[in-house]
Amino acid sequence: MRSLLLSMCFVFISLLFAIAQPQPQINMMPVPASYQMASGRLLVQLSFSVSLTGYKEPRLEHAVQRFVHNLSRQTGMPLSTRVGDSADASLVIHTEHASKDIQEFGEDESYSLTVSATGAELKAPTPLGVMHGLETFLQLVEVTPDGFAAPAITIQDKPRFGWRGLMIDVSRHFIPLDVLKRNLDGMAAAKLNVFHWHLSDNQGFRVESKKFPKLHELGSDGLYYTQEEVRDVIAYARERGIRVVPEFDIPGHSTAWFVGYPELASGPGPYQIERRWGIFDPAIDPTQEKTYKFLDEFIGEMTKLFPDQYFHIGGDEVNGKQWNANPKIQEFMHAHDIKNNQELQAYFNKKVQPIVSKHGKTMMGWDEILSPDLPKSIVIQSWRGQKSLADAAKQGYSGLLSHGYYIDLIWPASRHYAVDPLADAAASLSPEEQKRILGGEAAMWAEFVSPENIDSRIWPRTGAIAERLWSPAEVQDVNSMYERLAKFSRSLDWLGLTHNSNYGPMLRRLAGSDDTAALRALADVVEPVKGYSREKTAPTEPTSATPLNRLIDATRPESDTARRFANLVDGLISGQSNTPETKAEIRAMLTRWRDNQVKLEPLLQNSFLLKEADPVSRNLSAVSAAGLRALDYLESGQQAPKEWKTEQLALIEQAKKPNAQVLLMIASPVQKLIETSAGEPVSAAVRQHDDDDE
Amino acid sequence: MRSLLLSMCFVFISLLFAIAQPQPQINMMPVPASYQMASGRLLVQLSFSVSLTGYKEPRLEHAVQRFVHNLSRQTGMPLSTRVGDSADASLVIHTEHASKDIQEFGEDESYSLTVSATGAELKAPTPLGVMHGLETFLQLVEVTPDGFAAPAITIQDKPRFGWRGLMIDVSRHFIPLDVLKRNLDGMAAAKLNVFHWHLSDNQGFRVESKKFPKLHELGSDGLYYTQEEVRDVIAYARERGIRVVPEFDIPGHSTAWFVGYPELASGPGPYQIERRWGIFDPAIDPTQEKTYKFLDEFIGEMTKLFPDQYFHIGGDEVNGKQWNANPKIQEFMHAHDIKNNQELQAYFNKKVQPIVSKHGKTMMGWDEILSPDLPKSIVIQSWRGQKSLADAAKQGYSGLLSHGYYIDLIWPASRHYAVDPLADAAASLSPEEQKRILGGEAAMWAEFVSPENIDSRIWPRTGAIAERLWSPAEVQDVNSMYERLAKFSRSLDWLGLTHNSNYGPMLRRLAGSDDTAALRALADVVEPVKGYSREKTAPTEPTSATPLNRLIDATRPESDTARRFANLVDGLISGQSNTPETKAEIRAMLTRWRDNQVKLEPLLQNSFLLKEADPVSRNLSAVSAAGLRALDYLESGQQAPKEWKTEQLALIEQAKKPNAQVLLMIASPVQKLIETSAGEPVSAAVRQHDDDDE
Repeated sequence: MRSLLLSMCFVFISLLFAIAQPQPQINMMPVPASYQMASGRLLVQLSFSVSLTGYKEPRLEHAVQRFVHNLSRQTGMPLSTRVGDSADASLVIHTEHASKDIQEFGEDESYSLTVSATGAELKAPTPLGVMHGLETFLQLVEVTPDGFAAPAITIQDKPRFGWRGLMIDVSRHFIPLDVLKRNLDGMAAAKLNVFHWHLSDNQGFRVESKKFPKLHELGSDGLYYTQEEVRDVIAYARERGIRVVPEFDIPGHSTAWFVGYPELASGPGPYQIERRWGIFDPAIDPTQEKTYKFLDEFIGEMTKLFPDQYFHIGGDEVNGKQWNANPKIQEFMHAHDIKNNQELQAYFNKKVQPIVSKHGKTMMGWDEILSPDLPKSIVIQSWRGQKSLADAAKQGYSGLLSHGYYIDLIWPASRHYAVDPLADAAASLSPEEQKRILGGEAAMWAEFVSPENIDSRIWPRTGAIAERLWSPAEVQDVNSMYERLAKFSRSLDWLGLTHNSNYGPMLRRLAGSDDTAALRALADVVEPVKGYSREKTAPTEPTSATPLNRLIDATRPESDTARRFANLVDGLISGQSNTPETKAEIRAMLTRWRDNQVKLEPLLQNSFLLKEADPVSRNLSAVSAAGLRALDYLESGQQAPKEWKTEQLALIEQAKKPNAQVLLMIASPVQKLIETSAGEPVSAAVRQHDDDDE
Repeated sequence: MRSLLLSMCFVFISLLFAIAQPQPQINMMPVPASYQMASGRLLVQLSFSVSLTGYKEPRLEHAVQRFVHNLSRQTGMPLSTRVGDSADASLVIHTEHASKDIQEFGEDESYSLTVSATGAELKAPTPLGVMHGLETFLQLVEVTPDGFAAPAITIQDKPRFGWRGLMIDVSRHFIPLDVLKRNLDGMAAAKLNVFHWHLSDNQGFRVESKKFPKLHELGSDGLYYTQEEVRDVIAYARERGIRVVPEFDIPGHSTAWFVGYPELASGPGPYQIERRWGIFDPAIDPTQEKTYKFLDEFIGEMTKLFPDQYFHIGGDEVNGKQWNANPKIQEFMHAHDIKNNQELQAYFNKKVQPIVSKHGKTMMGWDEILSPDLPKSIVIQSWRGQKSLADAAKQGYSGLLSHGYYIDLIWPASRHYAVDPLADAAASLSPEEQKRILGGEAAMWAEFVSPENIDSRIWPRTGAIAERLWSPAEVQDVNSMYERLAKFSRSLDWLGLTHNSNYGPMLRRLAGSDDTAALRALADVVEPVKGYSREKTAPTEPTSATPLNRLIDATRPESDTARRFANLVDGLISGQSNTPETKAEIRAMLTRWRDNQVKLEPLLQNSFLLKEADPVSRNLSAVSAAGLRALDYLESGQQAPKEWKTEQLALIEQAKKPNAQVLLMIASPVQKLIETSAGEPVSAAVRQHDDDDE
């Protein structure tokens, strides 16, 4: 399911045009289930104190200390991390009882938070709710004319879905421990509660196995997590109310296993760690008993290491070529009346499931593992979509959605935001069946991310997915989401996430200079190509050795500047904001862009990394010049000549095409200006290129 | 010596006007002792490899791996960290022999580096030279039209001084381990080789003592380093060629000791950890034998923990009040013919020195410890200046300079750069005596730094001090220094130092908004007040509980923007660059600043943190308007009226005064514009306010 994502079917245009629903504004992400603003506010001063009442455990104390530490960072005030038990504290926390020793799906995560001018009270049945409530409080605190303060408010909050995950693929590019940890901090801020750790794939086996040491020794280039480190991550996650679900992808996506244990494979060895991207032939041999003996021991070891109830076996994208080519396997299939490779994989799954079960765990996997003779306890993670989930739910299987949440595809947050696990085919399920849709997971596949830019691919967009999974289904205002997402993004800076802070250094590297103003002007209005275009249109075949130091790697998934520009143009054209200020702002932006090429030129000449950006820069300049001319026409009231318009639209068409694998995001709004200046209706406002390759 | 820094006596103006010496440009910091550029360059490609030949040890391998890791970050290329031993590697390293097991002062740190189009060779007698050479290579690699490359060059390099340190005070504000480590990385990049760890003071005792646990338990608010953490830091430093010299400040600056052990003090207890800044009365009782028994055991423990040869006992700023007030001490002095407190401290030092010596260490301390009957082996660290050092050297004592290197005073890098340990009084020493000047140390006192902004107070300015201590004395071109310092500063971003990356978040916190453009425009042209003004002019008495979240805390010690503006104005006025481009740039800057107040106003209203900045913002606007008018006069050729000039200069005088404890750094250059426009000679070009309070 990695590379074969099929066509999307939801309607996207409608959302962009959806009229903002009137709902009281609260500058939080995710929006709480319900809340009531009151008047007044609670000042957060040096004397700010927190107490724990009711049920207590060390994790709660740590959570409070972390909260105070984060509040200190956010406000710059050295607040006391002493945790009291007095009812007079600024923030009094009451916890009813413990949560499960090993965090479970579906535990009560609710909380209520009341803030008044005199104090705040946070109540929750379990520590999980307390932790969410503390994140909420952090988001409420803002600077005011009188000091830092949280507005008076009453919040009753609980998640819509119990499974709100982020999957990180650490196989294709190894992601070090500190990067994972800061992303766990980001997850906690977004109230996500499952870290799905994609630990093995063709390109690397990333966990130390004491039983089968050749797995990590030969399958990882030395880039793996020790079991101690794994336990450290799990403890770190638990402290933040996050479960850790490990995935070991079998029987396909398993080349890295075979480097050390070729005898498991269906084809002759020897094997090397895969360096390319895509789907590959190697697959575990499901016909030999020693496979299951190995897996029994391996799963026994790993289920001891990973305490979570769920154990993910992957199961996706087996191309079957090694099975087809192996006479012994063909013979076996014939003997056992296994008609095709799909049935052979089902046979494999049916053998693996009892092993997982024997070790006390619930098996989960991608869509492909579903076959009717597996027990209803298994969980399906769907990269195929709501229909696939709905079909499974009807058969009695639980599932969660990742289709539509593939953040490596570099879609805008709005597109992910529009994806609802209970929409489309799932909407017609019975309430009982709908309960089987557990939630969803953002998926960060790692072909094109490094420790340096992975944060910028995860954040802030994952905040929008987190809100979809936490907040009521009716919370859908895209403009509000983007406003809140911007604030949420900046708040993550305090946690050490680098999606904002690494932008400057990456631009400086590209430029080979500290003076990156012109490069930034360009980078601010381009986005990486979407979907699977990057692999398909790469100048040379990308591999794990390919440097991720190009403009496409530095630029953000979503151009805030271009979105702002597009909004200004829409306001002008629709007449909703046809003001001198709007026109002046559009003109200033276009003028700056038109003149940018001259400033950027020396850098483009000087850096081999920037050479490819030359046509993008020229397009920015040319498109902006055309936009300025269109604005002249609009302001003069004189209609643009047809011939001129035709020429300019040809230029726009050209400029919309990817160059250097990035998209010039101001081309579409400028097109609207040109069309309007020529007295034409504007083209359908599809966000350009979103559906490039689906 | 913390708070009583006396008047400075070096000539500063001369340097600003010094004519740039013609010397071949090399974009490195510190500049090597000698080098010869050649033609061609070595491309750094994915195949880049490193080998170690000659003497080997794990530390060398780690150094190479760290180097490759940093080169990978810098270039964005996934380079192999495999260390070979082939003579065919891209970079062949040859080490002659081991350095000392415990790094010593004066060890050979030299290296030679030859880069040609076909490869590079780094040779050094010891691993210390290799580490420096690797930092040099990193700095050589830049982006080119053909790829990342190092220019062909031959470098013969060695430091001018063997003691090149950075002192960090972790008592006044506790500085966590990770912050120290990233600063050790910065030190290695600057080729500094001594981390002087100021571990105890009135405001905190920061090391775990197993012998006297009440020291850290009661003297640190729980903010201390365990012995394991200390060993970790020492190992981390050694891996980077850096010695760690601990300082335990006695007999003054010791309130934190007395919280747990009041019986050591000269006055009656009980004691509390000091929260204020300044010089305080508590001092160790030097007249009782149990003091020395305690110190013997304590020093015995700490000298085992810290392997370095030197042990720093502080010894500064004993105000003697407790001694005066204690009849027993007065009696003792009388009985032992001790005439004054200075002699009493000398008595104390004479008792402590044999203890330090007995534990195998060399005692060092600040100026005050010097007394004629101490052995010549002790080392003086001078906050008083070259004369103090020279006097000591004449008596046979070794010393190092910190006077002029107090980076907490927020002076410009150029001022530190002008301070030479062998200048002034030290210049007339005999060669033999000059050898006793071991080097110098930048000193980061921590009244006004937190983990959040300490990096911005240390870097990049410490790079200029590092160059003074490493490079030949003749390297003095200030313009060149600033150019190289800018590049050096950016290169530190890759090491995780936050002096650049925390600027944005701190501004956003001040603004309570993501839209910080107007605030940044202001913050970019102001600097914190200098010297000890901050304490003297604070709105309320600053303590360790005072939040460091004001504009003064966010803004940089040195405004690059204002320096650039001043240079443009100087070029215009001197006629050296009286071009339309210069004028246009000056006009654009002034226009932006003049119009900034209107944009900033809403933020100023909205954030209590920014209220105090209102007059600064108004001054920026008014001064810029005056500057624009002056420019008009200059461009029109019409002389500005005298009355107008007088009015404007009054405005400038007003605007030069600190507001919100920051200085508006464009006031002086605008004054020059005004004076010139009125046909007057410009005022002496002293950088404004540098000498505010000395």
